[in-house]
Amino acid sequence: MDPAIDTRVRASFAKQSMMETLGAKVIALGEGRCTIRSSIPPGARQQQGFGHAGLTFSVGDSAAGYAALTCMGLDSEVVTSEIKINLLAPAVGEYLLAEGRVIRPGRRLITVQSEVWAVTGETRKQIAVLLGTMVPVPLTTPG
Amino acid sequence: MDPAIDTRVRASFAKQSMMETLGAKVIALGEGRCTIRSSIPPGARQQQGFGHAGLTFSVGDSAAGYAALTCMGLDSEVVTSEIKINLLAPAVGEYLLAEGRVIRPGRRLITVQSEVWAVTGETRKQIAVLLGTMVPVPLTTPG
Amino acid sequence: MDPAIDTRVRASFAKQSMMETLGAKVIALGEGRCTIRSSIPPGARQQQGFGHAGLTFSVGDSAAGYAALTCMGLDSEVVTSEIKINLLAPAVGEYLLAEGRVIRPGRRLITVQSEVWAVTGETRKQIAVLLGTMVPVPLTTPG
Amino acid sequence: MDPAIDTRVRASFAKQSMMETLGAKVIALGEGRCTIRSSIPPGARQQQGFGHAGLTFSVGDSAAGYAALTCMGLDSEVVTSEIKINLLAPAVGEYLLAEGRVIRPGRRLITVQSEVWAVTGETRKQIAVLLGTMVPVPLTTPG
Repeated sequence: MDPAIDTRVRASFAKQSMMETLGAKVIALGEGRCTIRSSIPPGARQQQGFGHAGLTFSVGDSAAGYAALTCMGLDSEVVTSEIKINLLAPAVGEYLLAEGRVIRPGRRLITVQSEVWAVTGETRKQIAVLLGTMVPVPLTTPG
Repeated sequence: MDPAIDTRVRASFAKQSMMETLGAKVIALGEGRCTIRSSIPPGARQQQGFGHAGLTFSVGDSAAGYAALTCMGLDSEVVTSEIKINLLAPAVGEYLLAEGRVIRPGRRLITVQSEVWAVTGETRKQIAVLLGTMVPVPLTTPG
Repeated sequence: MDPAIDTRVRASFAKQSMMETLGAKVIALGEGRCTIRSSIPPGARQQQGFGHAGLTFSVGDSAAGYAALTCMGLDSEVVTSEIKINLLAPAVGEYLLAEGRVIRPGRRLITVQSEVWAVTGETRKQIAVLLGTMVPVPLTTPG
Repeated sequence: MDPAIDTRVRASFAKQSMMETLGAKVIALGEGRCTIRSSIPPGARQQQGFGHAGLTFSVGDSAAGYAALTCMGLDSEVVTSEIKINLLAPAVGEYLLAEGRVIRPGRRLITVQSEVWAVTGETRKQIAVLLGTMVPVPLTTPG
């Protein structure tokens, strides 16, 4: 993958304050692929004390979005058009891993999928799967 | 609606630390209906500075979930089984409103829908629609 | 609504052989709205003898698609990009009604929703809700 | 896989008249997996002459449903609770292949996924991906 794309994805990710709030980082990046690792912060819980669906969604959605962004030219951003999440198990563990990948790159629409895992020690359990569509938008440069 | 259900929903909501992190409150509640008002906090933005899809999802999902909870007995919680969001416009404005409602109550599955709006002054613009399924789980009482 | 759009939608619908196979007809059409009535033909059943999910999907999808088409110029077709169906009750009755409507018209993406009802005498029961995205494609003229 | 399950799935499939209408057959079956091959019949087209979204949906949905059924006891059926389809390319070719698989088996909910391919000679092109939820229902015995 072009190093400029790696730089570009990480610069965009760094601007997503939501990712910082959730303690999330990009830990792997390849063509059409992005893996995010996230904490399950005390401030992102649901009523039973597990991670909120919105936490699992956020990291799954961002992993899918940045997987899509690796397929775009350097003058585009992507935004989520629609995405569906099926929740498989509670978000409980030491941290979450979200693996996003592009199913079908397109000029107008990029179909994406993510799996999200909760990790405790050597064990990982799948907690969600997401299927959605990203759309390119022009990169707006400030100034 | 039974006042005990109102109390119950608000007690559950108060335990969702994610809602506090996002500056979200229940502002209306009825049988099969729940409205949440949320800020667009600096810590919940995407790369362009708009609210993250995960913010819009979180308030839409919680509004749908608590709409479902109003239809359940006092010994149940609900959790999201699956939900899909279509994002219609950027999350930009003074605050968000999410209106959740039950489409079909069921013993095993509750079908739900939410609309999310961004509000600026007198103007509100729909930014998302969600369609999903909530499932009842036993209320776990501590101690 | 421009009568030319009415003509255009009905001409496109008439070319969908799937609609004829399912005994489906457009019975109402307005700006951003389309209602389809369909039989529950013996050849479109699932294993319990009810209408197949594919029948309910097909009429819900076509109602949504033609609702979208009423918002397009005369030189475009629309195709389904993605759509989700929540099935609420078995497809059993005298006939089905699918009411599609546009939630958000757009130049590149049209967000749509459908409700599908099973009708028996004076009674109608909602059997499905669909939420999806239509995309315009150029109208290809033969010859 | 228990041969009784193979028999059971094929008996259920044989009762889906929709599958016969679409020229669809189960061509492979394993634990949590089901592959269906379907024609693209003249009576299941959309307005451009390609296979209707309802055709692609029907075979993808049935492949997912029968994948789920392989994980159930012999006294249950499954029905689709909800399913989402992302359409990737037109349904054009000699025939369709739908590969369904179980992502997470459960007692109350079975999460499933399908890929659908259009095949022409040696070439196959993915035309759709589906993600959904199946729910068990008691097997009703006639008589």
